[in-house]
Amino acid sequence: MTRILGIDPGFERLGIAILEKNKSDKKETVLFSECFKTSAKLEFNERLVLIGDEVKKIIKKYKPEILSIETLFLNTNQKTVMHVAEARGVVIYESACSGLKIFEASPPQIKIATTGYGKASKEQVMKMVKILVDLDKNKTSDDELDAIAIALTAFACMRG
Amino acid sequence: MTRILGIDPGFERLGIAILEKNKSDKKETVLFSECFKTSAKLEFNERLVLIGDEVKKIIKKYKPEILSIETLFLNTNQKTVMHVAEARGVVIYESACSGLKIFEASPPQIKIATTGYGKASKEQVMKMVKILVDLDKNKTSDDELDAIAIALTAFACMRG
Repeated sequence: MTRILGIDPGFERLGIAILEKNKSDKKETVLFSECFKTSAKLEFNERLVLIGDEVKKIIKKYKPEILSIETLFLNTNQKTVMHVAEARGVVIYESACSGLKIFEASPPQIKIATTGYGKASKEQVMKMVKILVDLDKNKTSDDELDAIAIALTAFACMRG
Repeated sequence: MTRILGIDPGFERLGIAILEKNKSDKKETVLFSECFKTSAKLEFNERLVLIGDEVKKIIKKYKPEILSIETLFLNTNQKTVMHVAEARGVVIYESACSGLKIFEASPPQIKIATTGYGKASKEQVMKMVKILVDLDKNKTSDDELDAIAIALTAFACMRG
């Protein structure tokens, strides 16, 4: 049995998912997923504390062995990407402090793991995630689907 | 009495300083400074854990009320700056978790606070730091001098 924490890094919205797979299972099971939001009314450091606390709480509850987190690339919004990197650092830090192994999933890896095609669109990835796992929620946000895709990527790379 | 933790963020080398000032003091006193290094042989997440542990240890020992940390701008080395941002996130996170207030010092603020001139060179800042505070060490590294300058900036901005 392997349990993976998938994280789509962010500081306004953080996609979080816990996936599990037993050797006999055909599919990965989504044990938990959420889009964790922090208010823009808070100072940035308060938002970092909330993010770290949430990650700690979920690790304590679900005891995953691996963190799978998306790699980060520079985009046009310099300020946002720096804050995302800072939040990403906190997630990796709390996970490593709790003894999790860290797997970094690049966008092409995520696309190949979910759709088989390294240049798939975001919509294609989202669509495949809904086929690859059973989602019991009526509405799963894009951030949650991203977190699930990121966790699935770690499972796929472990098989290889 | 105010005690400030100054941090020059980095993951290979982290400049750390603790400065104190009483109302009756003319000068700030450097209680502690170091250049904390992490080995490139370690995985990045292990280095983040060491950085967080060191910051926690120093906060516990010296009990500063404020973290003063340099703001970060993009430079040519995208990969390095992302890792510095991740380490910076961990420093802010651990400081906020310990109840410190966070002060972010921009390069022009640091230059004005130490030299009175917003376009001063790095060498001019280093030179002025050595005049502004008494350093009992024979050799204080540039990273430590930076951390001291960053702490001095928070003191200067609090006066204003």
